[in-house]
Amino acid sequence: MLYDTIIIGAGPAGCAAAIYATRKKIKTMLITESFGGQSSASSVVENWLGEKSISGFEFARKIEEHVRSQKDLEILVNKKVSLIEKACNNFIIKLESGEEFESKTVIVTAGGNHRKLNIPGEKEFNGKGVAYCSTCDAPMFKNKKVAVIGTGNAGLEAVIDLLNYASKIYMIDISSEIQGDKILEQKIFQSGKVEFFSEVKILEIYGDKFVQGIKYINKNPLTSSGQAQSNLEVQGVFVEIGSVPNIDFLNNLVGKDKFNYIKTNKNQITNQPGIFAAGDITDRIYKQNNIAAGDGAVAALSAFDYLKKL
Amino acid sequence: MLYDTIIIGAGPAGCAAAIYATRKKIKTMLITESFGGQSSASSVVENWLGEKSISGFEFARKIEEHVRSQKDLEILVNKKVSLIEKACNNFIIKLESGEEFESKTVIVTAGGNHRKLNIPGEKEFNGKGVAYCSTCDAPMFKNKKVAVIGTGNAGLEAVIDLLNYASKIYMIDISSEIQGDKILEQKIFQSGKVEFFSEVKILEIYGDKFVQGIKYINKNPLTSSGQAQSNLEVQGVFVEIGSVPNIDFLNNLVGKDKFNYIKTNKNQITNQPGIFAAGDITDRIYKQNNIAAGDGAVAALSAFDYLKKL
Repeated sequence: MLYDTIIIGAGPAGCAAAIYATRKKIKTMLITESFGGQSSASSVVENWLGEKSISGFEFARKIEEHVRSQKDLEILVNKKVSLIEKACNNFIIKLESGEEFESKTVIVTAGGNHRKLNIPGEKEFNGKGVAYCSTCDAPMFKNKKVAVIGTGNAGLEAVIDLLNYASKIYMIDISSEIQGDKILEQKIFQSGKVEFFSEVKILEIYGDKFVQGIKYINKNPLTSSGQAQSNLEVQGVFVEIGSVPNIDFLNNLVGKDKFNYIKTNKNQITNQPGIFAAGDITDRIYKQNNIAAGDGAVAALSAFDYLKKL
Repeated sequence: MLYDTIIIGAGPAGCAAAIYATRKKIKTMLITESFGGQSSASSVVENWLGEKSISGFEFARKIEEHVRSQKDLEILVNKKVSLIEKACNNFIIKLESGEEFESKTVIVTAGGNHRKLNIPGEKEFNGKGVAYCSTCDAPMFKNKKVAVIGTGNAGLEAVIDLLNYASKIYMIDISSEIQGDKILEQKIFQSGKVEFFSEVKILEIYGDKFVQGIKYINKNPLTSSGQAQSNLEVQGVFVEIGSVPNIDFLNNLVGKDKFNYIKTNKNQITNQPGIFAAGDITDRIYKQNNIAAGDGAVAALSAFDYLKKL
């Protein structure tokens, strides 16, 4: 059985790709661990066009339902791809379960994961004060005190997003210096709202129903009184310490940028003919549901055009 | 009053841009003739991610409602932009009403219009058999007879989309030859389902509640018996004779491709610093609601990044 396209992942990029591919009547399979992508964990999504406010759970349910309404689409859920290999002009997709499938094209939308602090409370309060996307969630912290962990550009941009909403922002980094661009830094300190805690290690995020604060130690013995643990009262914690694309199964089939994101052109075409990519696994600067969905549609239409010309 | 950004148009691109810009707390105005874009005229939209089936009217209502829920956004409806001019590093947006606004950036999402046949029945049966987007509407013509007007690549691609659904496809062109690429043409005639009517002028689309056929004359007296009018029974008419972007107000402020679509890079940046564009007015090959919404979000985030660095 040879597929026209196999889509890996079912966040907004994979779901849009599946719908567009199936409607083009090409033989399509969708392989995914789960539906909905990263925002399925969000308590509220307010920037998915057409929905003033929708829970991440409900968003995931809606796009899954839409995908499942495509009669000709084959869907494999709870499956993890272990490897993609080239075989002549086709690709072999190997699953951890041992199954193998062959396809003329592959659309990779396996997403990425925000790097986690891996401390107590982080998982528990995810969506209840702990956030990983300031473009999405900054508006929820109006007049609140917020900590931003990480001072790379992502961290500084989170601070800028929060300046318009939060009453006080603590920038926190494990190193002694701010990591991001100076031009952003200047803007931040002009505001008078921001305080920088350097050489700080976060131990725990605590709270009741929602985040109430963080526990930390100062790592520099010269500026701290020993290793005494301190509390900082905040209602929000933005974790901005990078993210990692899920590309292990790709080997070196496609070109990646220095952060390991798949490089694509405007039509979601990679440097490997027959492989397309969309969503948070790509080198798109802005990682958003609407953008992933659009790129997923583009990837499917590009794959269709590629198949037409075979 | 100086705006951070003024968005022109309120299809999915403009609406997404407005929501993303407003949530970034930049001073934003949206100027549009109406809400919803081209698909607001569609009877059914089946490929907007998350909605199995939604009328164009309801789609337009939902995105308008989402936009109007943004408290800080200024909205001007029923207004047409007549000219944008550069003024130092800002832009002056002039309306036909005589009003003028100044903004640091402009996001152009004024869309495009499908070229019309301008014959009786075309408007009346729009969405009732008359269609302009095969990616969107081909699945609605399962086992139906369909005419595709125009044999450029858009026409041939519409035929390919319809091959999987329609029982019979008439390709119709006013000239004597097929205009599009040979490679597409071969695929089409292999199917045995397609008939080409050359040198044909369509006079009328007729029907009852839905399209029932077209009236035409053969323009070549050698192959036709005089100018006798013929009827062709079809349930669908795809009009694929090109489209025109709404760019008159832009003068020569931004670079355009040979079809007059605004050239942008992957971040929706034009060659004029401070002007961004998204949706059907751009040189995007694929013109779809999901793609326009994604590009609109990107345009707003690019404008925000541009403003941060001013």
